Amino acid sequence: MSDHAAEEDALQLGLVRMQQAMAASGARAIVVLEGRDTAGKDGTIKRVTEHLSVRNTRVVALPKPSDRERSQWYFQRYVAHLPAAGELVIFNRSWYNRAGVEVVNGFSTPAEQARFLADVPGFEAMLVESGIALVKLWLDISKEEQAERLERRRTDPLKALKVSALDAVAQDKWDDYTAARDAMLTRTHIPLAPWICVRADNKKRARRNVIRHLLRTLAPAEVAAEVKAPKPEVLFPFEMAALEDGRLAR
Amino acid sequence: MSDHAAEEDALQLGLVRMQQAMAASGARAIVVLEGRDTAGKDGTIKRVTEHLSVRNTRVVALPKPSDRERSQWYFQRYVAHLPAAGELVIFNRSWYNRAGVEVVNGFSTPAEQARFLADVPGFEAMLVESGIALVKLWLDISKEEQAERLERRRTDPLKALKVSALDAVAQDKWDDYTAARDAMLTRTHIPLAPWICVRADNKKRARRNVIRHLLRTLAPAEVAAEVKAPKPEVLFPFEMAALEDGRLAR
Amino acid sequence: MSDHAAEEDALQLGLVRMQQAMAASGARAIVVLEGRDTAGKDGTIKRVTEHLSVRNTRVVALPKPSDRERSQWYFQRYVAHLPAAGELVIFNRSWYNRAGVEVVNGFSTPAEQARFLADVPGFEAMLVESGIALVKLWLDISKEEQAERLERRRTDPLKALKVSALDAVAQDKWDDYTAARDAMLTRTHIPLAPWICVRADNKKRARRNVIRHLLRTLAPAEVAAEVKAPKPEVLFPFEMAALEDGRLAR
Amino acid sequence: MSDHAAEEDALQLGLVRMQQAMAASGARAIVVLEGRDTAGKDGTIKRVTEHLSVRNTRVVALPKPSDRERSQWYFQRYVAHLPAAGELVIFNRSWYNRAGVEVVNGFSTPAEQARFLADVPGFEAMLVESGIALVKLWLDISKEEQAERLERRRTDPLKALKVSALDAVAQDKWDDYTAARDAMLTRTHIPLAPWICVRADNKKRARRNVIRHLLRTLAPAEVAAEVKAPKPEVLFPFEMAALEDGRLAR
Repeated sequence: MSDHAAEEDALQLGLVRMQQAMAASGARAIVVLEGRDTAGKDGTIKRVTEHLSVRNTRVVALPKPSDRERSQWYFQRYVAHLPAAGELVIFNRSWYNRAGVEVVNGFSTPAEQARFLADVPGFEAMLVESGIALVKLWLDISKEEQAERLERRRTDPLKALKVSALDAVAQDKWDDYTAARDAMLTRTHIPLAPWICVRADNKKRARRNVIRHLLRTLAPAEVAAEVKAPKPEVLFPFEMAALEDGRLAR
Repeated sequence: MSDHAAEEDALQLGLVRMQQAMAASGARAIVVLEGRDTAGKDGTIKRVTEHLSVRNTRVVALPKPSDRERSQWYFQRYVAHLPAAGELVIFNRSWYNRAGVEVVNGFSTPAEQARFLADVPGFEAMLVESGIALVKLWLDISKEEQAERLERRRTDPLKALKVSALDAVAQDKWDDYTAARDAMLTRTHIPLAPWICVRADNKKRARRNVIRHLLRTLAPAEVAAEVKAPKPEVLFPFEMAALEDGRLAR
Repeated sequence: MSDHAAEEDALQLGLVRMQQAMAASGARAIVVLEGRDTAGKDGTIKRVTEHLSVRNTRVVALPKPSDRERSQWYFQRYVAHLPAAGELVIFNRSWYNRAGVEVVNGFSTPAEQARFLADVPGFEAMLVESGIALVKLWLDISKEEQAERLERRRTDPLKALKVSALDAVAQDKWDDYTAARDAMLTRTHIPLAPWICVRADNKKRARRNVIRHLLRTLAPAEVAAEVKAPKPEVLFPFEMAALEDGRLAR
Repeated sequence: MSDHAAEEDALQLGLVRMQQAMAASGARAIVVLEGRDTAGKDGTIKRVTEHLSVRNTRVVALPKPSDRERSQWYFQRYVAHLPAAGELVIFNRSWYNRAGVEVVNGFSTPAEQARFLADVPGFEAMLVESGIALVKLWLDISKEEQAERLERRRTDPLKALKVSALDAVAQDKWDDYTAARDAMLTRTHIPLAPWICVRADNKKRARRNVIRHLLRTLAPAEVAAEVKAPKPEVLFPFEMAALEDGRLAR
């Protein structure tokens, strides 16, 4: 067995122990998974949930809001899915749509987007202070890598359902997405719910780093202790100041 | 027709116009109605909703939380009932249970209660800044009046369903309820969502004052303008400082 | 106190006892209230719920379905409101919209309407056999009475929120509504969930008869026994055969 | 590439085309996946959903009902998850709990279980006749295979979250589960929603057969036509009469 394979087994085992501990204690956790198109959100979630309990784990990927939902409080349809005791809820895209895809494509008004950025810190602080663990992960890919993945999507019929109308503009509007991302990270990186940025050009490495971070954050100390330290050039907490080792893709 | 009857008709008509304007503009409003046992919440709501549209008005009186709900984010089950476009939602008791009945009777922990008081201003500010009008009303009765009403409840078989196990302690724990109320008002009276305290020993006067306040807050200017100015000794905004004209019942 | 006033008090007291018994036993009940525009549904519900517990009673008056709901199973949004233990749920208009207003105004397809009539008996039988009491009430008014009430609605500003775009056609399409009602009653009057038709030209009498019927159906025997026998010319179970005493308004 | 690998790719591609067609037409589908412990439900779902859209596919694995849900209509909490236009909903265990695990372990009363078996045909017929495709799959394993899988579960720490208190009795109560299964299949195998039983001792073969069946049932004719005919000894529709080729495990 290769070193990587052995480590992956150890990480999966760590996730299992993490969820056993959560079930025993009634702990609740939310994982918010964000990133540009093709950053690897779906695949990462599949890897994370591979051995988890289907009853205590929920992956939430909401469809477009209905006309009625659109007129309600923005967070309302997300709140309906928050975890009960012992549950892990993974949001595959989340309330942060309003700070990313909606900004770049004009799906909401600038006033709504500004309101969102102002609201998020308070909203998330409430969840965390109520005892819910909240992990926010940004999968970061480079422009070149995205170009290749989009091309593979277009040509691989098995990926046909991943193709969306927005793919066409992901590269053209790369800089707009970058600006939106930076505004989002800057405004919503708070002590109680920091963003963790994961370099995602290398899928396997990215997934390992995501799992390592989940274990260090959500698992009991003795489980987390077994997890190898993440390599600093791949996983880093978002920093407002200059990031020598952790530049995000521009 | 007496003066009061004429004014009541005018107030009811104002409510109708208010809701017509809300439906036309897609406005959304929440009314939170709180007060001690027998303060007159149910009766006030009946009067307010008398001529309103049953489709655009929802009265929410949640039963005890289920075991699952008890393990979720405290606000979650209330958020599910927030208004869509054109809707008026009246909470007959609300999230403020945690600052009143739960405090006095130990239904939650002091830490949860402290957390609640810290969370409310941020939670409500989000709702208001998202464009939802939020009116918070405290119906204030005196100890003597409550004693009489509790006695009538006990002896009037038509009021049998209003009798609860907590009635027995409402008078004995009067001072505890007073302290809880004062802590609640002090901590959650915020500019974006102020408490309005209404003297409620006189039911009819209290109801008129509630409706006046709703019209002045939620109705278009031309409708509100027709509403008589409320008498200051009955209706007053909560004030942190000494209230010469507006002392709450001790 | 007049005879009527005395009887009304007795009926209200019966409702209180009925709900006390339901709360004690964990019984569940649904009341479906249907009838033409202006038949008196809102007012009847106000009278029925006058002294009932706001926590154990829910009045459900659903707004128009959202685009998403429209694509779901027709009964889905109603099922969400079915009663838990001890609860009484009153539907102010119900799933029967599909057999009335939708038929006359073409809001759904003839195939959907036919499907609905075929589904209802099975759907309701399931609810009843699961232990939920189901009372279906049709408030029946005459064409002349409806004409007068529509006229009062148009001219009384307090009734402005009751005016709907459909009022205009209620009289013109009177015969279409009659035909839809007859098809609905004929197809969905089943032993487990019979329709009870209540003559509603006289509002007070109609309300008394509704309450009498609720007590005879939902209250313990000793409570029901105190209720005066309903006058046969006013309240009658729907009969497929010729109705000598109980002709519905044509 | 082996023959099996090539066929698996073709099947996955078929699923992608199936969902594209569903999204385009607004079709809705439910897949109910049942089977004894360790029959392979979770793994099958992972394979089926591998390339499907996360927004249009929902896997529903409900936790234990809350105390409030337990007092509601049995189907109520499942109905909340029925599909909207374009959606595929996969129930990982479903309402059939009441006919299997609840029967063997006494989690509900015999009367409730009898009621359930009587209700299911009507309930499912309504869904199907409303235009929702309903596929019911029973994964059938032998006693020996289950024994081996349970043993692997007990010893493989990666499978720790799959271990449940009920595993211990799965073998001891094998015959009771067999009897419950036979009663369930016999009573709920209806023309509009037939059971398809899939031999599942060979996991890979079982998954291929499941996907083949989904394609033949839910995909457009031209997609289904490309799917190889299933081998009759592995996949068979449930038959009341003697099953020469399709004996279920006893």
